[in-house]
Amino acid sequence: MAKKIILDCDPGHDDAIAMLLAHGNPDIDLVAVTTVVGNQTLEKVTRNALSVARIAGITGVPFAAGCPRPLVRAIETAPDIHGETGLDGPVLPEPTLELDRRHAVDLIIDTVMSHEPGEITIVPTAGLTNIALAARKEPRIVERVREVVLMGGGYHEGNWSAVAEFNIIIDPEAAHIVFNESWPVTMVGLDLTHQALATPDVVEKIAAVGTKPAKFVGELLDFFGATYKEAQGFEHPPVHDPCAVAYVIDPNVMTVRKAPVDVELTGGLTLGMTVTDFRAPAPADCHTQVAVELDRERFWDLVVDALERIGDVEA
Amino acid sequence: MAKKIILDCDPGHDDAIAMLLAHGNPDIDLVAVTTVVGNQTLEKVTRNALSVARIAGITGVPFAAGCPRPLVRAIETAPDIHGETGLDGPVLPEPTLELDRRHAVDLIIDTVMSHEPGEITIVPTAGLTNIALAARKEPRIVERVREVVLMGGGYHEGNWSAVAEFNIIIDPEAAHIVFNESWPVTMVGLDLTHQALATPDVVEKIAAVGTKPAKFVGELLDFFGATYKEAQGFEHPPVHDPCAVAYVIDPNVMTVRKAPVDVELTGGLTLGMTVTDFRAPAPADCHTQVAVELDRERFWDLVVDALERIGDVEA
Amino acid sequence: MAKKIILDCDPGHDDAIAMLLAHGNPDIDLVAVTTVVGNQTLEKVTRNALSVARIAGITGVPFAAGCPRPLVRAIETAPDIHGETGLDGPVLPEPTLELDRRHAVDLIIDTVMSHEPGEITIVPTAGLTNIALAARKEPRIVERVREVVLMGGGYHEGNWSAVAEFNIIIDPEAAHIVFNESWPVTMVGLDLTHQALATPDVVEKIAAVGTKPAKFVGELLDFFGATYKEAQGFEHPPVHDPCAVAYVIDPNVMTVRKAPVDVELTGGLTLGMTVTDFRAPAPADCHTQVAVELDRERFWDLVVDALERIGDVEA
Amino acid sequence: MAKKIILDCDPGHDDAIAMLLAHGNPDIDLVAVTTVVGNQTLEKVTRNALSVARIAGITGVPFAAGCPRPLVRAIETAPDIHGETGLDGPVLPEPTLELDRRHAVDLIIDTVMSHEPGEITIVPTAGLTNIALAARKEPRIVERVREVVLMGGGYHEGNWSAVAEFNIIIDPEAAHIVFNESWPVTMVGLDLTHQALATPDVVEKIAAVGTKPAKFVGELLDFFGATYKEAQGFEHPPVHDPCAVAYVIDPNVMTVRKAPVDVELTGGLTLGMTVTDFRAPAPADCHTQVAVELDRERFWDLVVDALERIGDVEA
Repeated sequence: MAKKIILDCDPGHDDAIAMLLAHGNPDIDLVAVTTVVGNQTLEKVTRNALSVARIAGITGVPFAAGCPRPLVRAIETAPDIHGETGLDGPVLPEPTLELDRRHAVDLIIDTVMSHEPGEITIVPTAGLTNIALAARKEPRIVERVREVVLMGGGYHEGNWSAVAEFNIIIDPEAAHIVFNESWPVTMVGLDLTHQALATPDVVEKIAAVGTKPAKFVGELLDFFGATYKEAQGFEHPPVHDPCAVAYVIDPNVMTVRKAPVDVELTGGLTLGMTVTDFRAPAPADCHTQVAVELDRERFWDLVVDALERIGDVEA
Repeated sequence: MAKKIILDCDPGHDDAIAMLLAHGNPDIDLVAVTTVVGNQTLEKVTRNALSVARIAGITGVPFAAGCPRPLVRAIETAPDIHGETGLDGPVLPEPTLELDRRHAVDLIIDTVMSHEPGEITIVPTAGLTNIALAARKEPRIVERVREVVLMGGGYHEGNWSAVAEFNIIIDPEAAHIVFNESWPVTMVGLDLTHQALATPDVVEKIAAVGTKPAKFVGELLDFFGATYKEAQGFEHPPVHDPCAVAYVIDPNVMTVRKAPVDVELTGGLTLGMTVTDFRAPAPADCHTQVAVELDRERFWDLVVDALERIGDVEA
Repeated sequence: MAKKIILDCDPGHDDAIAMLLAHGNPDIDLVAVTTVVGNQTLEKVTRNALSVARIAGITGVPFAAGCPRPLVRAIETAPDIHGETGLDGPVLPEPTLELDRRHAVDLIIDTVMSHEPGEITIVPTAGLTNIALAARKEPRIVERVREVVLMGGGYHEGNWSAVAEFNIIIDPEAAHIVFNESWPVTMVGLDLTHQALATPDVVEKIAAVGTKPAKFVGELLDFFGATYKEAQGFEHPPVHDPCAVAYVIDPNVMTVRKAPVDVELTGGLTLGMTVTDFRAPAPADCHTQVAVELDRERFWDLVVDALERIGDVEA
Repeated sequence: MAKKIILDCDPGHDDAIAMLLAHGNPDIDLVAVTTVVGNQTLEKVTRNALSVARIAGITGVPFAAGCPRPLVRAIETAPDIHGETGLDGPVLPEPTLELDRRHAVDLIIDTVMSHEPGEITIVPTAGLTNIALAARKEPRIVERVREVVLMGGGYHEGNWSAVAEFNIIIDPEAAHIVFNESWPVTMVGLDLTHQALATPDVVEKIAAVGTKPAKFVGELLDFFGATYKEAQGFEHPPVHDPCAVAYVIDPNVMTVRKAPVDVELTGGLTLGMTVTDFRAPAPADCHTQVAVELDRERFWDLVVDALERIGDVEA
């Protein structure tokens, strides 16, 4: 049976591809999409999410906007990676979907509480502000959720500082809340996603799909590749967010390792680091695991397959 | 015209007196009461609030329960001051009011948004978790609220550490959120409330009212006086929370001073300190002020007057 | 019998006056002067110390230069208060004394170890780098020193931040070392020294002494008064450093209060705060006390008296 | 020409082996040995150093004791790894060497300043208290030293916390000082030394040397292997300290990578982490490098060779 997921995102180029993967893959049932400030302002990423929904032909799924700023820290966005709109590159269509009137936090809570325990997986690919607020507002979601599979952090890699990743460092207190609740958390961090590079062979395979959504992905990768080269010196851009969705589809797409993870809140050099303790075998009650090694081929096959299934969309 | 307030509290002996003062004084219109973990668990303080409502004869006011734990830190309660129930001492009646079905955060938001801008004053006398979550979930409340008058902190005094006060240190991240939003904040801190001691003459005047609610207050002060002497060496107990309500009733009951206030989040010795900058005259856009000196007599007169107006309640 | 002191300083206008007070007062035996980076670079404050020695007629006392930078933090000096030379205002004579060849840290250690236990009082009026290094290099000085009477910190007042004072915040780790060693420490902080204002009557009395050193002090106060007004809004300048010397001469020149003091090393808002715990009576083994209230008249009389005793110096 | 080194150590099982390697290898000229609190108290590690000198037949080299405690933090030793004496296992002979009368800090300074610029390499295999104090007391050593090659830290590995290593975390402020001075620093950290495991083949080769010093090393490894298995779950013990000496002998014994390194001083989870920034090629003026991969065979050959050269010592 398809796994029901809530995708909490800030599109964002790789978020958009994560949406397409979740929508196109038959083993995923996308039951809600929520947005949060991150790669760009809440207003921009929310509009982007709705535009991507139109491109992907997503209908019948509630979309809700969430928090316009992190819990404690000032807003920090990533225009050097995602441009001024948060999704620079392609021309985006006017959204046709209407936003759900609920706050994202309430949509998350309602969705989890109205499903059976263990039914809903939360897949955050952005800062964790919405998820943290939901857990604080309705603590019962924590044991009702199946698991949290998030893109963020890294046990050895950083991008926004030497040892911290963007999604975590922009709201470290929210991340601290999410990692310290008792639900199962899989951290798909930079150690993993820096293996998901959109190399020319990948770009070519996507182009070969030949549909409008695939062309859209091509344009995203074009822009994303250029900014990643310019801003962080990557030869080919790491496509982070779909990795988390891919893990939900097929856990065998990557190896994972159980280990305690906590989030640094006070370090002058290490703020927002996802501190992972590999010194000993994880204790029996360890509820966190980290993604280690990607099966690149299987991963990109999932992405291409999803695009093929989506086919050409009348937008 | 009476000022409309939301009382966000964790009864708590002095919270109970604050409720009675707010209910009995004609210049206050108590439009909502919300509860939050603090002096005791959410469950206990919520039940206490409802019991106090019955004692005071409060009806027609929505009461809602809020957050059962702080944003980031572990729960810390104050049984050495307030006992195992959070309101040890008097025998409490079974509540007759029913809780509003909304979460306190939503009741706060709904109340503020359904009134005119500038109509609602928020009076927190507990940790600031609910208020912080409300401001993050619905940022528009910040400019719609008239002001926040809170009991908490201290510019020179501490009680839970050398320089931090209980309501702030139990959820410093929430306090940081509240003090850093742009609404007017009046900090009625320990510098002020340590002047509001329930000395024998005060206890006598309250006893002289002779009603059941006054007798209840007498029993509260009995217990509170004993624990404050035992735990913190006070000869007479400081009755913190009604001071914030008293300031809303009559700003002349205390002197205040404008000064920037911020909350320390990383200090090893100073976590939760409300750092107040008195070095220069407050800048023109300073939105925070701190309470400095109490007119003791006027303050206690307000409390006694409220009890007299409440009279004897058929519970 | 006169008390033997080591003056560790960074002249600095008020340091210069402290030197004159220590030299001129018959109850003080100035056995060594050491310098350390602070108000200005080590090179500048050392030259200033030697020039002041010539002005004051100090001979036969070893002067040694110490640390050119704080333990961990970058150098921060105070040109807005003390000018580019560290002693702007008067024209300084060429020094005639030669520096001791030892490092200040070794001069401090040698002086303490070559005197009887309980003989030497250390009087730091600058950052505590030298004193901290001496205590770490030769731990036995700690129990051999009579006491440390330092100008620095403040329990309620700050100048370099809302809650921290210059001498402490420029090397908080050194201050942490000094306050946490077991020797008796008297903190003569801003709470006290902001009472030692050089008001016009004081300036006049000093001028009336009529000697060259008194004229020099007048010129110092002229410059210092102007910068304190400009930089920190003081009507009359607080003359910090001689207060510590005055306490050694006559403990009755101020009231003190025993209380635990520690130095904050990690606070984002409170770095370098001398956190003082007044919540309960100080424990029996408390080795720290803080200066509370100055007898202004007695203090300035000591300064004027010292200048009179120094008389006119042939420089 | 042999490289002149100062070995600053806290023997310590692996420190003892480092001493033997430095003494026995012809490309090293051991010009001074200094000790510092670490694996055990200063008194114990100093006595151990002198006993090892006797075992190794080291004469004509000054040995000096340094700091008995870290700069800011409380003393933390490692009896679970090194036992109550700091060198549990073998029976140690009475020392025959006498300690130099100077403090280790002064011996370091004198040694560096009395040699030509670029002649002396400092090899710390303990907490960095002595080295930091020397750099603060005599800043000119920094540009006079050839390089600092230290055992400590780790870019991805920790042992005393998830991300910090013992030598750094016991005195993080000292480490901060050493890493932030401008001298060339090579960090031979856990990432490297966890490759230097004393596997049975290594133990056998050492035993085959057949001399008393070799037998002594065998007894050290026996004890060390047992405690490392017990305390940290290692199958074979990592022999950290000789790796730093080996790098001085022959830089080709390991690969290194230039990267900025700094030491975390405030992190709640990351205190003492040697934060290494691999995100981009190291800047041209980067003065720090980290050891990455060990040539195991070449390394152990150096150790065995040194033991063979030392031969049998009449102790």
